[in-house]
Amino acid sequence: MTATQPTRGTLPQVIRRDQATLLVSGADRQGLVTEVSSVLADFDANIISLDQHSDDPFGGNFFQRTVFTVTDFEAKQSALEAALEDNITEELGLTWQLIPGSKIKRVAILASKADHCLLDLLWRQRRGDIPMSVAMVISNHVDVAADVRQFNVPFFHVPSAAGSDKSAAEAEIVKLLEGNVDLVVLARYMQILSPEFLDQVGVPIINIHHSFLPAFIGAAPYRKAKERGVKLIGATAHYVTADLDEGPIIDQDVVRVTHADTAADLQRRGADVERQVLARAVTWHCEDRVMLNGHETVVFSN
Amino acid sequence: MTATQPTRGTLPQVIRRDQATLLVSGADRQGLVTEVSSVLADFDANIISLDQHSDDPFGGNFFQRTVFTVTDFEAKQSALEAALEDNITEELGLTWQLIPGSKIKRVAILASKADHCLLDLLWRQRRGDIPMSVAMVISNHVDVAADVRQFNVPFFHVPSAAGSDKSAAEAEIVKLLEGNVDLVVLARYMQILSPEFLDQVGVPIINIHHSFLPAFIGAAPYRKAKERGVKLIGATAHYVTADLDEGPIIDQDVVRVTHADTAADLQRRGADVERQVLARAVTWHCEDRVMLNGHETVVFSN
Amino acid sequence: MTATQPTRGTLPQVIRRDQATLLVSGADRQGLVTEVSSVLADFDANIISLDQHSDDPFGGNFFQRTVFTVTDFEAKQSALEAALEDNITEELGLTWQLIPGSKIKRVAILASKADHCLLDLLWRQRRGDIPMSVAMVISNHVDVAADVRQFNVPFFHVPSAAGSDKSAAEAEIVKLLEGNVDLVVLARYMQILSPEFLDQVGVPIINIHHSFLPAFIGAAPYRKAKERGVKLIGATAHYVTADLDEGPIIDQDVVRVTHADTAADLQRRGADVERQVLARAVTWHCEDRVMLNGHETVVFSN
Amino acid sequence: MTATQPTRGTLPQVIRRDQATLLVSGADRQGLVTEVSSVLADFDANIISLDQHSDDPFGGNFFQRTVFTVTDFEAKQSALEAALEDNITEELGLTWQLIPGSKIKRVAILASKADHCLLDLLWRQRRGDIPMSVAMVISNHVDVAADVRQFNVPFFHVPSAAGSDKSAAEAEIVKLLEGNVDLVVLARYMQILSPEFLDQVGVPIINIHHSFLPAFIGAAPYRKAKERGVKLIGATAHYVTADLDEGPIIDQDVVRVTHADTAADLQRRGADVERQVLARAVTWHCEDRVMLNGHETVVFSN
Repeated sequence: MTATQPTRGTLPQVIRRDQATLLVSGADRQGLVTEVSSVLADFDANIISLDQHSDDPFGGNFFQRTVFTVTDFEAKQSALEAALEDNITEELGLTWQLIPGSKIKRVAILASKADHCLLDLLWRQRRGDIPMSVAMVISNHVDVAADVRQFNVPFFHVPSAAGSDKSAAEAEIVKLLEGNVDLVVLARYMQILSPEFLDQVGVPIINIHHSFLPAFIGAAPYRKAKERGVKLIGATAHYVTADLDEGPIIDQDVVRVTHADTAADLQRRGADVERQVLARAVTWHCEDRVMLNGHETVVFSN
Repeated sequence: MTATQPTRGTLPQVIRRDQATLLVSGADRQGLVTEVSSVLADFDANIISLDQHSDDPFGGNFFQRTVFTVTDFEAKQSALEAALEDNITEELGLTWQLIPGSKIKRVAILASKADHCLLDLLWRQRRGDIPMSVAMVISNHVDVAADVRQFNVPFFHVPSAAGSDKSAAEAEIVKLLEGNVDLVVLARYMQILSPEFLDQVGVPIINIHHSFLPAFIGAAPYRKAKERGVKLIGATAHYVTADLDEGPIIDQDVVRVTHADTAADLQRRGADVERQVLARAVTWHCEDRVMLNGHETVVFSN
Repeated sequence: MTATQPTRGTLPQVIRRDQATLLVSGADRQGLVTEVSSVLADFDANIISLDQHSDDPFGGNFFQRTVFTVTDFEAKQSALEAALEDNITEELGLTWQLIPGSKIKRVAILASKADHCLLDLLWRQRRGDIPMSVAMVISNHVDVAADVRQFNVPFFHVPSAAGSDKSAAEAEIVKLLEGNVDLVVLARYMQILSPEFLDQVGVPIINIHHSFLPAFIGAAPYRKAKERGVKLIGATAHYVTADLDEGPIIDQDVVRVTHADTAADLQRRGADVERQVLARAVTWHCEDRVMLNGHETVVFSN
Repeated sequence: MTATQPTRGTLPQVIRRDQATLLVSGADRQGLVTEVSSVLADFDANIISLDQHSDDPFGGNFFQRTVFTVTDFEAKQSALEAALEDNITEELGLTWQLIPGSKIKRVAILASKADHCLLDLLWRQRRGDIPMSVAMVISNHVDVAADVRQFNVPFFHVPSAAGSDKSAAEAEIVKLLEGNVDLVVLARYMQILSPEFLDQVGVPIINIHHSFLPAFIGAAPYRKAKERGVKLIGATAHYVTADLDEGPIIDQDVVRVTHADTAADLQRRGADVERQVLARAVTWHCEDRVMLNGHETVVFSN
C-alpha cells in the first residue's frame, strides 16, 4: 500500500491522509447533528459530506455519516477520539466509529467454481473502483487459481470435507483469515457456514444470493424461478447471519426475462445481476456507507 | 361501438374488419408453422405479424400467434374455421382460437376504495391505448362512483356481507357479469373470491398483487417489505386461480426504495408500479398476446 | 386550506405548523454545517432531515437543505429569520430561504389538448401525493375543461392568437397568474412562451420535454427518435429559461422500445414516461428539494 | 473448434451440426411466411424459432429469421441453397442468408488502454455466453497484452502514427484481419478509422459509444454530460459507417446519476453500462439476430 494507491474514481488519487469518516448512531434526540458537528468544529474540520437519517424523528434511531478533513489528522486522531468519547458516548449515549481515510479495508473472497462475481471484484479493485485490498482468495475448488494469481492475489485451496464434518475446513479458513482481514465476501461460495465459524471470524461477511429475496430462499433459485414463471429475476447482497438468507439486505436488483428464457438463460443473465449487486454492496461497505438498524440497513449510497 | 372506435395507438383507427388473430397451441411436432400458414395461404391471408414459441423444440409444447388480414373476412370466417378444424384440430391435434379484429373485449373492473389502478384503466381505454370496452365497474364501496361515471361507465355498488356469508354478494356480481363480459379485472379489489365464484364467472380474471410474487404472499405486503428491509418493491399481475396469489404471472415490475422510505412511501410509490403493471397485463390480454402454458404464461409482448 | 389538508404520504396528516425547511447555498468554506445547525440549535430546533452537497469541497459551492421542527414555530419565525440574516447572510455571505411547513405551493398548470400529464398531476394532488394546491388550469383548447372541473379546479380558456401576435394571450395569462401562484407547470403546453412572459410571470416554470434531452431538441422528438432508430425513448423535466429546451434539468427517465414500435407507439409509450418524470419533478420542487447550481440542479430527492 | 465447444448457455453443448439459421429480407408481399416455410418443409426442417417483422404490412419491408434443424444438414446444404435461390431470390425477389449452426463467427477486438469492454468480451466468450471465437486482439497500446494472452488469445500491437498519416497502421491492421475474421469489435478503440479502412475490412464493425446517442456525439461525452447536468448517462452500440457516431444503433442503455457524481464518477459508472451494452450487441450479432433496415436495425433479441 503506497501513497499512490487509488481509492475511488477511475484516476489514482493520493490517499487522503487528512480525511476521515465518522459514523454515529443511537437513540434519536434533539440537537444531535449540532453536537456532532460541534465536536468536529473544535478540530477545525472541513466537512466534505454529511448524510443523516432518523427512522422516526420523534423517538426513533439516529444515524449519521460525516466525511471530513482535518489538517495533520494523524497527529490529532487520539485527541479527537477522546473528545468523541466524552461528547458522543458519555454525554449523549451514542455509538461512534472513526475511520481514517488512510485505512483501506482488507478483504478475503471465498468462492467455489463460478468465477463471475470473483473476477469482477478483483478487476474492480485493480482499476481502483473499490477502495479495498484483496488479501486472499479461498476456494473449495482449484478452478479459479490461475485467474486469481494473474491479479497478483494469493489463492488458497481449502477443500470441503464430505458429509457432516466441515469443522476441519472451517478451522483452516479461520486460521488463514485471523488478523488478516476486515471483511469476508462470499462470491457464490457454495458451502453453508456454521454458526461457530461466523462467531470465530469476527468480521462482517457479505453474501450474494442469486434471487430477489425473500423470494426463492434456499437452493436452486433459478430453477424455482423458471417453474414459477416469474417475469423478473434478481440478486440480493446481504450480511450473513446465523439465519440462512435472512441477514440484513444491502442491495438488490433485477433483470427482465421472458417465457423464451430457459433455466440456463436465467442463470446466465442472473450472473450479470449478481456481479453488479455484489460489487455495489462491497463498494458501499468499504466506503463505510452501510450502517445496521436492527435487521435492516441504512445505506448512504450517494 | 362504431367504425371510428380506436383500437390501438393514440390516434383513432377504423376497426380492422378484415383483420383477425389466430392462436394455436399444443404438442410440438415438425412442420406446424408451415401447416398453419398453409391454411391461411389458402384464404389469401396477408400475415401482419407472427410470433411463435416452442418450450422444448424436441417434444415440448408449441404456441403461435398470427395476425393477418383477409379481404372480406366476415364472409369467409366460417369457411376458415372449418379449415382450421380439419387441418389443425383433426390432423394435428392442436387447439386453436380465431379472434376477429372487430371483436373488442368487454371488461368488468372490480375495485374497492383505492382508485389508482381503476382510473388508470378507464383513462387508457378512453384514449384508445387498450382495445377494450369497459362494460361496468363494481365496487364494495361507493367512493369511486362519481369518477367512474365521469368516464361514462356504469357503476354498481355491491357491498360485501360481514363475516362468512359472501355468497349473496358474489351471486349479485355473477348476475351483473353474466353474458356481459369477456374479462374481469380486479383493480385492487380487497375481497377474496370463492372458488364457486371463479367457476360461475366463466371468463378469465386478472388480479394485481402489490408485491413482487412469490415474495410477500398474502395481506399487507408493503408492511412486510418494510420489515424485511428490501431495496426494491414490486407488483405482479396474474390470472386468478383457486390458489390465492398462485395464478399464472402475466407481468411484474419493481421500483427502487431506500431506508428513508416509510411504509406509507412504499404504498405510494408501489401504487405507480401497480397501475403500470396491471395496464400492461390487461393490454396484452386484450390484444390476445397471452397464452397459457400450464402454470406459466407465454407473452408475445412485442 | 385546513388542518387536515394532506401534505405527503397516502394518509392525510395535520399540517406541520411547527415544521419548516431551510435552504442555504453559497460559496463553500469551513464550518458551514456547524454554523447553520448552531443557529437552529439556538431555537431548540429538532432536525428531522439534513441533506448537504459541496460540488467541490475545496473552494466550490455549498448547498444544504434542513427540515426541522421548532415548538410554536410561527411565534418564533421572525426571530429565526433575523438570526439567519445575521449569521448566514452577514457573517458567511450565504443565501438562505426559510419555508414554513404550513406553506403549500400554489400551482397553475398550462396544457393544450393532451391530457396525460395534466390529469396525472390533478389526481396526484387529490390523493395527497404532491404537497401543492392547484389554483387553476389554463389551456389554449377546451378539450380538457370538463375533466379539470371534475377535480374541483378552475379552468380558463385562453386561445392562442394565430400568427405572430401572442402578446394578447400571454398578457391574459399573466393577469390570471399574478399574485395567485408560486409555480407554473407546462404539462405538454404546445405554445412557445416569449422571454417577456417569463420575466413577467416571476415564479419558476417547469416544463416536460418529450425526449431524453439533449437528444432531439425541438419539435416532433418521437418522429426523430423513430427515424434515428434509437432503442430507448425518454422524457425530461426542466426549468424553463429563455433558451428553448436548455433549462436546468430536474429529472429524466427512459423506456425501452424496439423496431416493432411505430412512431404512434413511441408517442403512446412515451406518454407514460412523461407523466412520471413530470410528477417527480413537481413533487421535488414542491417539497423544496431542488436547488439551482448555475445551469445544473442539485436534487435532494431522498 | 471441437464438438464440445460451448455455443450458448452456461453449460457446454455439442455444436448443433444439424441446425441452421435462415435470414430473409426484402419488399413485403402476401404469402412470404408461407413461401419460406414451404421451402424449409420440403427439406423436412423442424422449425425451432421464427421471428418476423414487417415495418409496414401494406407495402413496406419484410424481415424473417428462422432457426431450424434438418437431419444431416451438411449433406443437404447445397440443395437447400439452390432451392432458396429458386424460390426466394428468383421468384420473390428477396435476399436470403443461410448460416450453418456449426459456423461460429471469428472476431477481432480492437482496443486502446481501457480494458473494461475488452476483458468482459473475452470472459464472456470463455464461459460460453457469446457464440464467437476471438481470433485476435489489436491495440495501439501494450497495456492490455498480458491480460489478453491469459485468455489464450493472440495480441498484436499496432501503434498509431502521430499526425495525419495513419495509413500505415491501418494497412497493418487490414493485413492482420484479412481472411481471418467475420466481425470487428471496437471495444473503446480511441482511433478514428478512415473510410478506406472500412471499405478494405469488408466485414461488419461494431463500436461502443460512451453516450446515449444522438446526445453527446463526438469526444468527451461524460464531460459534456456533466456540464449539461443530465440525470441519466448511457452507452450505444452501433455498426460503424463512414459517418462518425451515425451508424445503425443495435442497443442502448442508461444508468441514473445525480448532482453528487463527478465527471470521474460518470466515467466509472458509464463503464459498466458500456460493457453490458456492447456484450449484448455482439451476442445478438453473433447469433444472427440483427438485420439492417436502411439506417435502422431490426433486432430479434428474444
